[in-house]
Amino acid sequence: MSLDRVREHPAPLAAARRRRLRADQALQLADLLRRQVLAGGFDRDGGVLPHEDTLRAAYRVSRNTVRQALDLLRAEQLVERQPGLGTIVVARKYSHGLDRLQGLAETLREHGRVTNEVRTVGPVPAPACVADRLRLAGGDGAQVLYVERLRRLNGLPLSLDLTYIPMDIGIELLGADLENNDVFRLLEEITGCRLGTAQITLEAVNADAHSAAVLQAPRSAAVLMVERLTHLSDGRPVDLEFIHFRGDRISMSGVLHRAA
Amino acid sequence: MSLDRVREHPAPLAAARRRRLRADQALQLADLLRRQVLAGGFDRDGGVLPHEDTLRAAYRVSRNTVRQALDLLRAEQLVERQPGLGTIVVARKYSHGLDRLQGLAETLREHGRVTNEVRTVGPVPAPACVADRLRLAGGDGAQVLYVERLRRLNGLPLSLDLTYIPMDIGIELLGADLENNDVFRLLEEITGCRLGTAQITLEAVNADAHSAAVLQAPRSAAVLMVERLTHLSDGRPVDLEFIHFRGDRISMSGVLHRAA
Repeated sequence: MSLDRVREHPAPLAAARRRRLRADQALQLADLLRRQVLAGGFDRDGGVLPHEDTLRAAYRVSRNTVRQALDLLRAEQLVERQPGLGTIVVARKYSHGLDRLQGLAETLREHGRVTNEVRTVGPVPAPACVADRLRLAGGDGAQVLYVERLRRLNGLPLSLDLTYIPMDIGIELLGADLENNDVFRLLEEITGCRLGTAQITLEAVNADAHSAAVLQAPRSAAVLMVERLTHLSDGRPVDLEFIHFRGDRISMSGVLHRAA
Repeated sequence: MSLDRVREHPAPLAAARRRRLRADQALQLADLLRRQVLAGGFDRDGGVLPHEDTLRAAYRVSRNTVRQALDLLRAEQLVERQPGLGTIVVARKYSHGLDRLQGLAETLREHGRVTNEVRTVGPVPAPACVADRLRLAGGDGAQVLYVERLRRLNGLPLSLDLTYIPMDIGIELLGADLENNDVFRLLEEITGCRLGTAQITLEAVNADAHSAAVLQAPRSAAVLMVERLTHLSDGRPVDLEFIHFRGDRISMSGVLHRAA
């Protein structure tokens, strides 16, 4: 079908043009620019965004709209205005794959070194909901290893992870180098069994005061919250994690299929 | 391996117990309770959470920790305190699947009726980055149909969607009932071709003032932002969307596999 079809539909098209409301143009432009910032689209220009006049012409919007859109991206801490330079990209989001189950260090290998500050590690009695999900024989009251880690990439805080592991496996983790290894890798090493699948749930929440402080993010910063229950390839659940990613540093990407 | 192994590792276990820092116990409890709220775990009790004393005993934490955890969930607008009743679940998050490419109405069919307030619909010249992703022959300047919709479930705002569609297909959408149909369904009807795959990217961002107002969410509310490029089964990209989900109303769930 060609654009000539436009002429065959004069009524709805005209009506649409008439009823076109004042669009959320700044939001629209911010969405388009955010995408390019995240995809490294301005890297070849040294991270400098085009001049406001260039953006205005390219997107056919007013100067005011351009400024509002850039304000939105500044509020997200993706760009900054630098006198004499213009608007520059200051943050990079790292993409965590939704296509394959991987630990953080595995996923971000090409971007640098992941280190883990172990804030807490030790056995705790499993709350009923944890015992239930990890299918612990002892049920409520069985011991689990609880690990709380602040995870960094090249020294920058990325996520606060709260992890529960059945104690028979967890006991072996106590002697392991949790600072420099993904728990995933250690689990496979300890059990001699590959990981199989994980059920994940993603949400966006505002950071509470405490986790904002730990993540060195502003109070109420958007957090990409991931709950993940990981199983060994034999089906046994071995790792329940609550991951609080800094929203300004991590995105998750994947491919969805229409067919079941 | 049994829990007897604990006795074989006295040194690391004791060390771990000693160096157990003051944990983020409120956050830890909030994560566990959030999960149960979202999974409908308190539905059988009429949406009423257990009494503070019961939670304190069940999770072996102080009264103060219980209160802080409930405060966190209140701040996320998941629960409310009602005099004489206790803490009750007030929000429900709807789960959008990550396992299969579906429109919102398809996904949420069992939960109620999705309606779309079409805020803007009409042809616009495609910005270069849109033309590029939709592989438009005319490149920068080719027309695309731009659609902006506020999507509601049973009347409650769920998401603000900004959509770009190649004009040869878009022209047919102008006459369609966009208020009551997923664009996905209409695209398959118009083209006579099934949708194939979509590349998606998920992020957590803070709502700007404008989209917060449209979504009737608090300023700076956490937004689950989805960018999705959908292709027909023949590989042609036909639908570029920027979806701003209210973080307190939508979660996304799926299964990840370890093997490539």
